[in-house]
Amino acid sequence: MTRPAKPTSNQKFSVQLLGISNAIVDVLAHIDAAVLEKIGAVPGSMTLIDEDQAREIYAQMGTTTEMSGGSVANTVAGFANLGGTAAYIGKVRNDQFGDIFNHDMQSLGVDIRLPQATDGAPTARSHVLITADGQRTMQTYLGACLELALADVTEATVGRPKLILLEGYVWDIAEGPALARKAAEIARQNGTAVALSLSDSFCVARHRESFDDFVRNDADIVVANEHEVNALLGTTTMDATLAALTDYENLFAITRSAEGSVIVHDDGQVVQPATPVDKVVDSTGAGDAYSAGFLFGWANDRSLSECAQYGTYCATRVIQQLGGRIEKGLLDDFS
Amino acid sequence: MTRPAKPTSNQKFSVQLLGISNAIVDVLAHIDAAVLEKIGAVPGSMTLIDEDQAREIYAQMGTTTEMSGGSVANTVAGFANLGGTAAYIGKVRNDQFGDIFNHDMQSLGVDIRLPQATDGAPTARSHVLITADGQRTMQTYLGACLELALADVTEATVGRPKLILLEGYVWDIAEGPALARKAAEIARQNGTAVALSLSDSFCVARHRESFDDFVRNDADIVVANEHEVNALLGTTTMDATLAALTDYENLFAITRSAEGSVIVHDDGQVVQPATPVDKVVDSTGAGDAYSAGFLFGWANDRSLSECAQYGTYCATRVIQQLGGRIEKGLLDDFS
Repeated sequence: MTRPAKPTSNQKFSVQLLGISNAIVDVLAHIDAAVLEKIGAVPGSMTLIDEDQAREIYAQMGTTTEMSGGSVANTVAGFANLGGTAAYIGKVRNDQFGDIFNHDMQSLGVDIRLPQATDGAPTARSHVLITADGQRTMQTYLGACLELALADVTEATVGRPKLILLEGYVWDIAEGPALARKAAEIARQNGTAVALSLSDSFCVARHRESFDDFVRNDADIVVANEHEVNALLGTTTMDATLAALTDYENLFAITRSAEGSVIVHDDGQVVQPATPVDKVVDSTGAGDAYSAGFLFGWANDRSLSECAQYGTYCATRVIQQLGGRIEKGLLDDFS
Repeated sequence: MTRPAKPTSNQKFSVQLLGISNAIVDVLAHIDAAVLEKIGAVPGSMTLIDEDQAREIYAQMGTTTEMSGGSVANTVAGFANLGGTAAYIGKVRNDQFGDIFNHDMQSLGVDIRLPQATDGAPTARSHVLITADGQRTMQTYLGACLELALADVTEATVGRPKLILLEGYVWDIAEGPALARKAAEIARQNGTAVALSLSDSFCVARHRESFDDFVRNDADIVVANEHEVNALLGTTTMDATLAALTDYENLFAITRSAEGSVIVHDDGQVVQPATPVDKVVDSTGAGDAYSAGFLFGWANDRSLSECAQYGTYCATRVIQQLGGRIEKGLLDDFS
């Protein structure tokens, strides 16, 4: 297939993209590498922590900066900033971080589908520890995200989007796998396509069987980097990965850092080289930005080659700036 | 005088610097200049707003970034980052912004003297609207700051610092003028010097008589830019300002942007040129950084010429980076 067959141009959708994911506020600080050792964090990893650990790490962080984050939430924000219509399901509390998160989404025109929780855990925060070499290590306290429930995913909250984008991190929530399946069921009834972002390779390792089942039975599109796809398939080389993918019917958009990206579809592959840049300022959010561009193309019925170019263009821009979110109208001048 | 005579080297002080000021979290966003017009804001100004206006402006701001701010709070943070010992009196609520503010101060070693309020208005926030030309317009909701009370300034909370730094914005608080005078009284008993930052020229215009009285009777040091000093003295040229200052006994540290700074003291003046830079990335916090460097020198018994060099060095660094806070140990290599 050149793309999942379900959505056809004469069907009406309420929005183009609905994201379902962990709603997180990033708490960023520059730290000495010694701090990572002290708290036992693997450089470059994303680790889930509890409230006590969160308190301990925050105390080590020095002066911080706060901004809305979350992988698929970043993609949804980017998609909206590119001019797409978008909606979002994620759980925040009625606290200041919850206000920040919702404000930042709503100000981009994203339709927030759940009310802020009036009790339970506080809004999630990811402590982003930036060392002198620019590497980011994330220690994430999921807080309210863990309370996202099966009951939050209904025909009313999902509506009729052209595409639903879920992230692998949702599987870290108790009711996550069940609510992901329910979203896919509602999608099936409405001719909505389903995309899954694999989040990170450790996340894939935590939920490999369930992911494989979801990819085979519920998802139309998979967006991921090479390492995540390898973790899913148990492969170690791109050749082995491409061979293994012949067993899947999904559309795969696979990013490969400086080696560009590969789109695998029924009829073959689209190989998209990376755009050389003088200097990578900050690689954060490159994958999320690629997804935003790629899915914006897909939602607007562009060819897969154009989708890959959009994704590359967005990712290239984001790595040359501080912060992972795409600026407004980035693709307006794309030619 | 070469410096206020009160503190002598054989006196013991608990900390070098105590700041008393508005404790504010900055909420920053890039906006179209049209938004300024829409909300009726004068480009480059700092305007006080109420909670309804705050809600309205926040809704216009798009994606935001949050970080601890406040003019004298920035100076205190910078002073601590330079290696000075510091304490702080300011009012925040027990909410997430209050947590951010206190965390950021405490992580630099600043001794926070007041507990977080358990009721009343939320922690203050300043909406910093950045237009394409880099200019910053601030719309500040003072929230909990307005509840800083005379009763919060006691011998116990003030302690025995070598220097107390107050900001003009404190006069916007109902009990601000009274608590400033009380701080000065406690200072007098302990041989503590008192410095006043004039905040901004509109603030000076709001409180000119009271400032003049405080400068003449309570303050040893005044830190301000040229426009603020002019507003205080009713002068319009630097020559007129210098002439008018012969009527004051204070030590004045006056910043003049690209024209450097002038230190006016009993025996004359120190004229410090600015350091040329290739490109001003962000002028925010230049004055606060100058104050941090200048007062760090003063608290460490450096000559006024060295103090001016420290201030210039800190301000020069800050305008070449994004964000207004000084990095740790900036003066360690100063020679």
